[in-house]
Amino acid sequence: MHHFYETRVRGMVMSEQDGGIIALLQINPTVGDLTGNAQRLEHFIQTATAHGAVACVSTELAICGYPPRDLLMQASFVELAQQAALSLNVDIPSLIGTPTIPESERAKPGNGVALIGNEAPVKIVARKQLLPTYDVFDEARYFDSDDRPGIARTLSGPLELGVTVCEDAWQVAGETPSEYDADPIEQLAEWGRQGVNLDATVNLSASPYHSNKIQTRLHVARTAAKTLGHPFLLCNQIGGNDDLLFDGRSLAAWPTGDVVVAPSWKEGILLVDINNLESASWISMDSSQGEITHYAPHETGEEQNQVLDELADAVVLGLRDYCQKSGIQRIVLGLSGGIDSAVAACVAAEAVGPENVLGISMPSRFSSQHSIDDAKYTAEALGMEYASISIDDHHSGLEKQLAEMLDQGANVAQENIQARLRGILVMAHANAQGRMAIATGNKSELAQGYCTLYGDMAGGYTPLGDVYKMDVYGLAEVFNQRAQSNGKSPPVNESTMTKPPSAELAPDQRDDDTLPPYEMLDGILKLHIEQGLGAEEIAEHGYDHSTVVTVLQRLEANEHKRWQMAPAPRVSSRAFGQGWRHPLASKHDWRR
Amino acid sequence: MHHFYETRVRGMVMSEQDGGIIALLQINPTVGDLTGNAQRLEHFIQTATAHGAVACVSTELAICGYPPRDLLMQASFVELAQQAALSLNVDIPSLIGTPTIPESERAKPGNGVALIGNEAPVKIVARKQLLPTYDVFDEARYFDSDDRPGIARTLSGPLELGVTVCEDAWQVAGETPSEYDADPIEQLAEWGRQGVNLDATVNLSASPYHSNKIQTRLHVARTAAKTLGHPFLLCNQIGGNDDLLFDGRSLAAWPTGDVVVAPSWKEGILLVDINNLESASWISMDSSQGEITHYAPHETGEEQNQVLDELADAVVLGLRDYCQKSGIQRIVLGLSGGIDSAVAACVAAEAVGPENVLGISMPSRFSSQHSIDDAKYTAEALGMEYASISIDDHHSGLEKQLAEMLDQGANVAQENIQARLRGILVMAHANAQGRMAIATGNKSELAQGYCTLYGDMAGGYTPLGDVYKMDVYGLAEVFNQRAQSNGKSPPVNESTMTKPPSAELAPDQRDDDTLPPYEMLDGILKLHIEQGLGAEEIAEHGYDHSTVVTVLQRLEANEHKRWQMAPAPRVSSRAFGQGWRHPLASKHDWRR
Repeated sequence: MHHFYETRVRGMVMSEQDGGIIALLQINPTVGDLTGNAQRLEHFIQTATAHGAVACVSTELAICGYPPRDLLMQASFVELAQQAALSLNVDIPSLIGTPTIPESERAKPGNGVALIGNEAPVKIVARKQLLPTYDVFDEARYFDSDDRPGIARTLSGPLELGVTVCEDAWQVAGETPSEYDADPIEQLAEWGRQGVNLDATVNLSASPYHSNKIQTRLHVARTAAKTLGHPFLLCNQIGGNDDLLFDGRSLAAWPTGDVVVAPSWKEGILLVDINNLESASWISMDSSQGEITHYAPHETGEEQNQVLDELADAVVLGLRDYCQKSGIQRIVLGLSGGIDSAVAACVAAEAVGPENVLGISMPSRFSSQHSIDDAKYTAEALGMEYASISIDDHHSGLEKQLAEMLDQGANVAQENIQARLRGILVMAHANAQGRMAIATGNKSELAQGYCTLYGDMAGGYTPLGDVYKMDVYGLAEVFNQRAQSNGKSPPVNESTMTKPPSAELAPDQRDDDTLPPYEMLDGILKLHIEQGLGAEEIAEHGYDHSTVVTVLQRLEANEHKRWQMAPAPRVSSRAFGQGWRHPLASKHDWRR
Repeated sequence: MHHFYETRVRGMVMSEQDGGIIALLQINPTVGDLTGNAQRLEHFIQTATAHGAVACVSTELAICGYPPRDLLMQASFVELAQQAALSLNVDIPSLIGTPTIPESERAKPGNGVALIGNEAPVKIVARKQLLPTYDVFDEARYFDSDDRPGIARTLSGPLELGVTVCEDAWQVAGETPSEYDADPIEQLAEWGRQGVNLDATVNLSASPYHSNKIQTRLHVARTAAKTLGHPFLLCNQIGGNDDLLFDGRSLAAWPTGDVVVAPSWKEGILLVDINNLESASWISMDSSQGEITHYAPHETGEEQNQVLDELADAVVLGLRDYCQKSGIQRIVLGLSGGIDSAVAACVAAEAVGPENVLGISMPSRFSSQHSIDDAKYTAEALGMEYASISIDDHHSGLEKQLAEMLDQGANVAQENIQARLRGILVMAHANAQGRMAIATGNKSELAQGYCTLYGDMAGGYTPLGDVYKMDVYGLAEVFNQRAQSNGKSPPVNESTMTKPPSAELAPDQRDDDTLPPYEMLDGILKLHIEQGLGAEEIAEHGYDHSTVVTVLQRLEANEHKRWQMAPAPRVSSRAFGQGWRHPLASKHDWRR
């Protein structure tokens, strides 16, 4: 117990002596880029030091970016990452997220935290205890878990900090889908009752974004702070890494329930004086401005009118970061004159600048004049490059060459030829000009297979792939408002918003010839995909049972298309992609 | 201890009284098809009963097929599966693999075993303890683990059986990549030392195939039997489920090291008299014949000259089962005259019958006459449908229409247009005629991105996607030998085997203009992909370091293509697909 007593004394000295400003480094790392991430961390830490911080806390696995996925299965990668984290050149004690070298030959790495810059030997002070294996997470694949939280003692301050990693703090709030054996926050609280006097507990996070997740995080942070009886500081990654988005919103929660939250979608440093929540401040580290938000004890953070605005920010960030981190400067997409490609163009223009986006209208004999006009209108309103290339000759040529076969075959073949010719044209521009093609489909279409593999699904990224059709309309309004508030023409015109959706691959075709109305379809899909309900349960929500069964059967029958879809930024509580792992050749009975 | 004593007495009575024939049900279930799998199990159990079995043992999750993946996240699916398993109509005690209903609201299902047909209430007798999270496995995503193995007491026999599930038996042999906290086989052995006298231990498995895995399984089974001091009976699934193949080879191992192994790739029943290994027998339940193999204590089962033959069986089964379980009768593929499409055609012809396969030759002006001839030769030798459709007009038309852009752009655009026109033609036949297109690429090409998205990568399945290029040549020889032994012409002719590989998308193009020679490339890829070695370690195996770095950089740079590749049957110890989860937008330094 001598050790605990000493600790308590040091904690008390600290709190009387100085402010104890802790800097939360809300960074946007690139996965695998150890050198670049190290430089970024050093720059952030230098800035924090200059602003009076006595200690820094990074995001989870900040040195290598989250999620590094199977890079972690290469031993040399883990060694280099840990070495990079421990070798950072910093002036103040800093807690840096890093994979840690396995402790024995048959052990796995840890999802760890290094304490550096402490005028003492650098060391690993914590390894994540709770390893999520649900949703998009595969942490038991990569890591061994520790059996207790960490404690970091910093000489400057001095501070005595509890150290946890992301999921470690979620169990105490009941916000994990199933129970773990341990609860790191409860363990820290128990240590506190036994005399370990911590000044604060920190949490290094890479908590992916989905709509409304701020409410959950406030609940987690308040519960942790209240349980611990001292400030709880959570540093969350920002940025897009493939199909995962991280919104930042690092935060500091007090046992009273007061919380300060950093801006979303921005890089910067949240400075928190652990003796004075009110003095928290934000240092912007990118070109944008941002403000911190104070939440009184019972405020939930929910502002419904901002949901679509945030959705727009999310998909833009996903595409922007995918391009930046892949070295892609320019984008090409097909512009049909429909709502999906118009909104995808808005996203692309905001992500990489309209001057770097080429939209191609590719009419066939089934294209309506209003669609051709609408496509051109959107391109001009956004100020992007525009080309119109007819597919008629190629379409007719193929029809003629394959006439006998096509006449005897299913109609879908004739429809798909058009979509795939457009895919060829878009990809030809991508390959020739070093652009990335983007696919313009939405989640509702992809769920029902109302899309053509190698046609409209062609591309390296699907910005709207986790956005339900009705929300695509909502996004159109957001982008129109943004344009108008900048004194520009709204990029999605009235006729694009109001005409009945059509693939225009056959005469007078309409989406609702094949699909239920999108309001109904979206409702059914959400209940199944996001809440896991079966047909009978969904019908209890007021939907026609046979319609529901048809939707679920179509969903399953088109799993093979989604297996091949390009990554889409995840914005819902359950997206196609890493978090959706369904069998293809299966025969489930969807009536139940 | 009274209970244990009674058990021992019953076991002794049994072994004096009768033969105790246990039937291992080596079935090929369809994922999700609860009704079909239940009927299949009942049929197998009836057959086993008629052959004198006193108890049956199924494969892991036999009632729903392995792996059911995210179907397990729908509560109603788990309930229906357990109900189907417990309701099977059988006459003898049978151990059936089934997901089990969670024990509390925040718990997950178990990967369990039901005991039915025992003239007593049916019940769950075991839940898998060791949940693998490596390679293709995500079991911690779906299941809660138990903390002890199961014991099943059957009234007929009577028998006292230890009950384990797949991975449960692997730890004792050190054949798991990392250590679990528990060892179910050791636990059973300890119970034995405490007086629980088991007659045998059974293991319900769904152990995926890869080359040479039989050696590992023999080691696992012998170690288990020796540790337990009684027979160890392992029942393994057969069949292809999406990208996973299961080879069957159910087995019975004695503490002496003697083992009997059921045939691979066949459905049937292995009957094992637990008092007499020599009398083991095999009941074929499909149209094929098969024989059991006896291994003396130190035989390893390795027969190198059969490796390629087995590889051919594996990829054929993968494609055949994917088609059968998806309701696909017919296949279409592009036939270039090269080795890959020729071998893919052989696989397709064996999988669904040559009369159900259409091969299309689609020459451009860069196609050599020998390639056109070779394509036709293969189609005729296999007896499949054949068509020749020129892409010249469409190619020229697109070149003319896009001339200005193509002239200023990268050459790859012009090459890919040809590949994608072929993709359109193949997919048009697929859509019109209800065929599945198959992609013909091999693992070496896919690793290097030497393939065209939406071109030669188009299709619903990639039969050679986990076969290295040099093994594609080996497969050609296997299929040629098989044809000749049936008195037919070899389908892959000499010139296809010997000409330098070329994509024929540009004048005088050869693969080795871009890639290292395939022998070298395959060697480097294997060391990295299957053994996880970095560039410096690979160079120590005698490869030029800068060549290795180039190969690894190309591997990473083409991750986005593989994200969109169709499923490929896994035949190596590490395949692209479910077991390969790499980031796309990343910046790893591959020189180390």
